[in-house]
Amino acid sequence: MAIDLDYSSLLRSNLPAPAKRWGGFPPFNFVGGNNDAGSVPVEDMIAATASVLRREGTTLATYGMQSGPLGYKPLREFVANKLAKRSSMTVSPDNVLITSGSNHGLELVNLILCQPGDTVLVEQFSYGSALGRLRKHGATPVGIQLDDSGMRMDLLAVKLAELKAQGVTPKYIYVIPTVQNPSGSIMPETRRHELLRLSEEYAVPILEDECYADLLWDGERPPAIAALDGGNRVIHVGSFSKSIAPALRVGYVAADWAVISQMLACKNDGGTGALEQMMLAEYCATKFDNHIDTLCVTLKGKLDTMTEAVSEHFGTAAEFVTPKGGIFLWITLPDTVDTMKLAQAAAAEGIAINPGPEWASDAEPARSRFRLCFGSPTTEEIRDGVKALAEICHREFGVPVRGANIERR
Amino acid sequence: MAIDLDYSSLLRSNLPAPAKRWGGFPPFNFVGGNNDAGSVPVEDMIAATASVLRREGTTLATYGMQSGPLGYKPLREFVANKLAKRSSMTVSPDNVLITSGSNHGLELVNLILCQPGDTVLVEQFSYGSALGRLRKHGATPVGIQLDDSGMRMDLLAVKLAELKAQGVTPKYIYVIPTVQNPSGSIMPETRRHELLRLSEEYAVPILEDECYADLLWDGERPPAIAALDGGNRVIHVGSFSKSIAPALRVGYVAADWAVISQMLACKNDGGTGALEQMMLAEYCATKFDNHIDTLCVTLKGKLDTMTEAVSEHFGTAAEFVTPKGGIFLWITLPDTVDTMKLAQAAAAEGIAINPGPEWASDAEPARSRFRLCFGSPTTEEIRDGVKALAEICHREFGVPVRGANIERR
Repeated sequence: MAIDLDYSSLLRSNLPAPAKRWGGFPPFNFVGGNNDAGSVPVEDMIAATASVLRREGTTLATYGMQSGPLGYKPLREFVANKLAKRSSMTVSPDNVLITSGSNHGLELVNLILCQPGDTVLVEQFSYGSALGRLRKHGATPVGIQLDDSGMRMDLLAVKLAELKAQGVTPKYIYVIPTVQNPSGSIMPETRRHELLRLSEEYAVPILEDECYADLLWDGERPPAIAALDGGNRVIHVGSFSKSIAPALRVGYVAADWAVISQMLACKNDGGTGALEQMMLAEYCATKFDNHIDTLCVTLKGKLDTMTEAVSEHFGTAAEFVTPKGGIFLWITLPDTVDTMKLAQAAAAEGIAINPGPEWASDAEPARSRFRLCFGSPTTEEIRDGVKALAEICHREFGVPVRGANIERR
Repeated sequence: MAIDLDYSSLLRSNLPAPAKRWGGFPPFNFVGGNNDAGSVPVEDMIAATASVLRREGTTLATYGMQSGPLGYKPLREFVANKLAKRSSMTVSPDNVLITSGSNHGLELVNLILCQPGDTVLVEQFSYGSALGRLRKHGATPVGIQLDDSGMRMDLLAVKLAELKAQGVTPKYIYVIPTVQNPSGSIMPETRRHELLRLSEEYAVPILEDECYADLLWDGERPPAIAALDGGNRVIHVGSFSKSIAPALRVGYVAADWAVISQMLACKNDGGTGALEQMMLAEYCATKFDNHIDTLCVTLKGKLDTMTEAVSEHFGTAAEFVTPKGGIFLWITLPDTVDTMKLAQAAAAEGIAINPGPEWASDAEPARSRFRLCFGSPTTEEIRDGVKALAEICHREFGVPVRGANIERR
């Protein structure tokens, strides 16, 4: 039935283009925060759901169960315990807000702080969806260069001073300090203190995104920025998407009540799904640590497969720092490669990658970089997909000149 | 730890007041779309979750499972079947979008259609949260008077003509035709056709909210407006909050792809909770109809208790039409009663009610009306709460003059 109403004059101005019909996942899916299918703890989830529903299932009849608008209280208690144990934070469960994924937390931060014309400081390469949300709110993400230890504090200081001279106070500084997305770097504790000092000097809050921090398999995990002196200037965001499963849509915000109370006032979603919250609280209380240990072994194995495949097929053309955790590898190719074009050519052959410019405040420095996620594809898909991608890249850009010790045509 | 950052200069302008700490539900809770706790099908939910997770649990590792951004496909298929059976609609599962509650659907409609200054036509008494959302988007809800058959078409025609003369095209007409919220009326089929005719004449889409329509225990259920000729001008919204449980946060939108595709483009939440979607699809496929039958008996029993209690304690001071379904009773008191003040006095004594002005496009005609929800409280709470409310009303306004055949002091 054709629609007999012309919506074009009714739609709000400046809408994005309408979505296209979903065509399924591409055969080689190296994008998105997807995870290892075999690591989903299915039987334990079933047992946890049965246990918690048998005990408290009738509370589903009320919005927020018996826990109020912050979210299911036993889950907030688990989050507070986890943040104490893994992030060295001291947080009351009453200052933890359960959100529908960490993106929902980022959205609430923007909702209370950002309006058109605002400036937000970000890592020069950063989470694409976070950058997109800022732009949607009319705010400008201004990038600060990264090195192997994360955001450079010398350049942040210069930018803050420069903005101050222009009368601009950035609304917040967005950082992913532990397993930075996309570079995978880990900001050392000393630099975290420097960041807090600058936050104090310029009276700018910090938005700390710790989405990937639980997936760390190598080296020490520094305390969260929110755990350090002055950490009450930090809005701390995390997620169960990477540690348990993304389709659950459960994340959290831990922050001062001044922030949480304002978020609550703007939040009108009726809460996050009850089954996920209840199941996670029940499951994580006893199983979280072991699950993470096992998951990290699996992810490290997939990363090894991916770095081997990239080295084999791209040779020295692909530069990267092997991350100590997470689910993605950030790769720099020679300047001649335009990864936006590479992504397009790859998509046509069933390979999805994140071209650098989509993960950057400024497109130009990211032009020859791209991100490959390794959590979801099988080791075979990783090997075959990277090989095929190298072939496409060679065909389109003459890069790599040769791979696997075989001169390319 | 006191916060050492002054957020007042950082917060966005025009924010609502920050939320207060949640103090638990009041003893007599006659507000909110809460439901009967004993009717939550706990054991069947446990069985459904176990069954679907055992079969498909590993798909939780990917956003949207294997179903894409519209939501879990078996649930969309169930919704399409339910709409066919109960609402006489013909909808493809590929034009059904699963949302996190029906409010999320309403929000998406506003997101694609409304901007500041817009006009939306609504029933003069309507769902408070929907009215609040419109105002938040800067749109003005303009109310059309109701009678016992819902929105009056003669007055809608006049208003549409009047707006047209002013060069104003309303963005949509929002109606709750089956168990209207709050009045409980059911719009007859003939009037639905009239509404569609006006929608065509003025090229204005209809937003049909069928949230309560499955909870109908008396009389014929007319076809949804979306099911009738010209129904492709209707954006149809529904929910599992009232039929199964509100804490699940699952609703849906059924509409033309022109609408759904634009909603998808604006939607960036990563989808609705997977466990709820999977559990509901599994559970509802075989249990929905029986569950609704049983639930309706329970709800009708609670309504009977409430109408008896209201008649006993308010006497002829309280006028109402007994609804044929739903979870609320809409009551008109004498003009001397200000229900905003009544609600405040009642809240101080642990009784929560919805004062009329919060459920109205214009406060004045709703001044002496209020809404009592009966789904969640026990029959004892209904009896005791209504009695206590009548005493408060008598004390504050001298209304009722007498009740229960006892002259009041």
